[in-house]
Amino acid sequence: IAKEMEKLLEMETQLGDEGKSKFVLKTPKGTRDYNPKQMAIRERVFNAIITCFKRHGAEVIDTPVFELKETLTGKYGEDSKLIYDLKDQGGELLSLRYDLTVPFARYLAMNKIINIKRYHIAKVYRRDNPAMTRGRYREFYQCDFDIAGQFDPMIPDAECLKIVHEILSELQLGDFLIKVNDRRILDGMFAVCGVPESKFRTICSSVDKLDKMPWEDVRSEMVGEKGLSPEAADHIGEYVQLHGGLDLIEQLLQDPKLSQNKLAKEGLGDMKLLFEYLTLFGITGKISFDLSLARGLDYYTGVIFEAVLVQQENNQVEEPVSVGSVAGGGRYDGLVGMFDPKGRKVPCVGVSIGIERIFSIMEQKLEASAEKIRTTETQVLVASAQKKLLEERLKLISELWDAGIKAEMLYKKNPKLLNQLQYCEDTGIPLVAIVGEQELKDGVVKLRVVATREEVDVRRESLAEEIKTRTSQT
Amino acid sequence: IAKEMEKLLEMETQLGDEGKSKFVLKTPKGTRDYNPKQMAIRERVFNAIITCFKRHGAEVIDTPVFELKETLTGKYGEDSKLIYDLKDQGGELLSLRYDLTVPFARYLAMNKIINIKRYHIAKVYRRDNPAMTRGRYREFYQCDFDIAGQFDPMIPDAECLKIVHEILSELQLGDFLIKVNDRRILDGMFAVCGVPESKFRTICSSVDKLDKMPWEDVRSEMVGEKGLSPEAADHIGEYVQLHGGLDLIEQLLQDPKLSQNKLAKEGLGDMKLLFEYLTLFGITGKISFDLSLARGLDYYTGVIFEAVLVQQENNQVEEPVSVGSVAGGGRYDGLVGMFDPKGRKVPCVGVSIGIERIFSIMEQKLEASAEKIRTTETQVLVASAQKKLLEERLKLISELWDAGIKAEMLYKKNPKLLNQLQYCEDTGIPLVAIVGEQELKDGVVKLRVVATREEVDVRRESLAEEIKTRTSQT
Repeated sequence: IAKEMEKLLEMETQLGDEGKSKFVLKTPKGTRDYNPKQMAIRERVFNAIITCFKRHGAEVIDTPVFELKETLTGKYGEDSKLIYDLKDQGGELLSLRYDLTVPFARYLAMNKIINIKRYHIAKVYRRDNPAMTRGRYREFYQCDFDIAGQFDPMIPDAECLKIVHEILSELQLGDFLIKVNDRRILDGMFAVCGVPESKFRTICSSVDKLDKMPWEDVRSEMVGEKGLSPEAADHIGEYVQLHGGLDLIEQLLQDPKLSQNKLAKEGLGDMKLLFEYLTLFGITGKISFDLSLARGLDYYTGVIFEAVLVQQENNQVEEPVSVGSVAGGGRYDGLVGMFDPKGRKVPCVGVSIGIERIFSIMEQKLEASAEKIRTTETQVLVASAQKKLLEERLKLISELWDAGIKAEMLYKKNPKLLNQLQYCEDTGIPLVAIVGEQELKDGVVKLRVVATREEVDVRRESLAEEIKTRTSQT
Repeated sequence: IAKEMEKLLEMETQLGDEGKSKFVLKTPKGTRDYNPKQMAIRERVFNAIITCFKRHGAEVIDTPVFELKETLTGKYGEDSKLIYDLKDQGGELLSLRYDLTVPFARYLAMNKIINIKRYHIAKVYRRDNPAMTRGRYREFYQCDFDIAGQFDPMIPDAECLKIVHEILSELQLGDFLIKVNDRRILDGMFAVCGVPESKFRTICSSVDKLDKMPWEDVRSEMVGEKGLSPEAADHIGEYVQLHGGLDLIEQLLQDPKLSQNKLAKEGLGDMKLLFEYLTLFGITGKISFDLSLARGLDYYTGVIFEAVLVQQENNQVEEPVSVGSVAGGGRYDGLVGMFDPKGRKVPCVGVSIGIERIFSIMEQKLEASAEKIRTTETQVLVASAQKKLLEERLKLISELWDAGIKAEMLYKKNPKLLNQLQYCEDTGIPLVAIVGEQELKDGVVKLRVVATREEVDVRRESLAEEIKTRTSQT
């Protein structure tokens, strides 16, 4: 027994030590750091998106990363369980924002703004099961563009789709398709199929699963779990396989049942108008009116849309295979009213760019390509060929900085020229300004082009200009 | 009694109703939204700072907004109580980052990076008592630039000070002064004054209060609360009133007591070297070696510095009055080692720009000036003079967007020309492209300059070029 005890005590000691030294060096689950290379890619993607948002005249706002818990309560339906709450440390109860749309609506109501076109790029937080290889994280960026205000129908809605089209074309991620539908058409369809009104939202969220599940499974969820009649489900099944363009809209406007439903008729009328505007924008080639598109969130009230990348299969007869959503949005005319003390509504339509998935794709593409990504913009390295020239390097680099030149030097007293040149090779710095005894006497600096090894003496007073000229193509 | 009861019930009902309707429409305590005008100012300040960081060859990284709680534990001394914790919802214990320095050190240790120059601009969180009028918030931006790696002494340290000098000059906030000291000089000074080593840090944090409290109060804190001998305190009092330049450094190197202390001697030697480099950078005019500078954080190990804006009093004889710190930083050679499993150290020096205070000052300055800040970059409004031209406006704006022009239009079917021109006045759009029946027939667009009311017909195919030329000065 004594031996056994000894063993146990030893094990305990070991475990104790392990516990102590086992400080885990990691980022929280579902989050990541961005290293300089990833940041360089991220900046490229952000720039393309921000340029587009600004081209459409958007202002920019920012809101805090957390909101009062009650601000988020009752806005996300079932997904509310994914909200991160802060610990009650005395004071207000706070939660991390779940998206940028609800804070935007809170901002509008709080500041009594009835008219704004703004973008907002910021991180949002969801305690989801992360699938990080597919670009899904618990902390991730959203890039939102929204138009708030009472306007003539479908003009802002059409602009949102134009923006998605511009961004996805610009980023060259491959072929894409923007699916469009309208919550009013869905609700009208549910009504004529015999779905009781109390089940509209839950049946809608079943339809939303059609991009991940076959119809048979969705049907059995409707009938089995949600208690819909088999006839109603089959009727829905006929509608949700429909997709097309103006012709389909016209066809449904003639549909004996749908055309009798007020909501559906309104939705179809607006859809027709939307397609007319999209024709003027010249982008209907990538738009598909798709009755199976439902979107998860509760707050949509009109047009909804989602952009997916499509992989063209070799077999041309096959339908294009969707590889995931990269943008989505829609109209939400009731959300601001939920915050206004008097319930005053501000109609809104907006689009959210799925930046993390886009970023993952870009990263993979660049990884596969030969392109070397620079993580700095340094134009010139200030170097020396001999020893004891640290002071001269410091003086020269200071002159260049003051002239607006992006310049670096090695933080060594007497660096070897080879090491300095190697640093340029490694980091992509195109030019080297070399100070030496002779050059100092002559009032010149030797400027070396890293790629060609060409060297030329430049008068010190015109060095900054020369560097600007030689690096102006970038 | 029945009446009284009735009254009470009525009051209760009223209170109940009130409680229900009392949804508070606000941002959490100590936080704020940024409206488009504030964002425009913020972007200007950020651009100036990022341009400077890039001029010095910095890469950029990003880290999650929260860290494992244990990552932050034991890094901030007393201030740890200000850390925001997340609620335990099952899973890891998380806290919002308190600064960007500790996450940076965690990042270096985790990725075994021994050499990097990076900047990081992001929000940090402190459950402090907010003084929002003075630009202090619970959620605020930090702009950090750090150089990590084993280098020859004082070269990276000098560059950090050059960066502060460049940024504060560029932003034109008024006159400023950069105070410099060294933790080793402070510790050496404490030793020769007879402070027991166990009291170094706590006496150091008393010295840190000298910018807010007179010496007498600091002295009584040292003697009364912290149990220092009056003689030691008085001795410290003599040192901490010293400030100057190279001459003071030379004087202290001759100081019979300080020169005998190994730490102080090291610190003074490096300080001399630093001033030599700063002389080569031509910035010693705004640098003051100040023995009263202590800095709050525990982790500094060498050079420390802090930049303050100074208000020149009318009375030229008076010392300049400090109006608050706008940047600070220093060397922290031990922090990365706290994260490394084997305790391997990576020497670091860095600077943090106090962006919120700078932003407050810029906001006040712009508020006071006549300058009107544009919140969009729109170059042209696509307008119409007659009715029924919505389709034509949509077609033209689409052409302009596709040509890279920043263009807007009113989201109305038949807007009045006057309203369209007014929109340009309000938002600062410089040009209006007017489509009309006659212009359509002639294949031209009327281009109007808002400021001068000048109008000119431009051929439709050269409109984009014409707009680019006319708006290229911005």
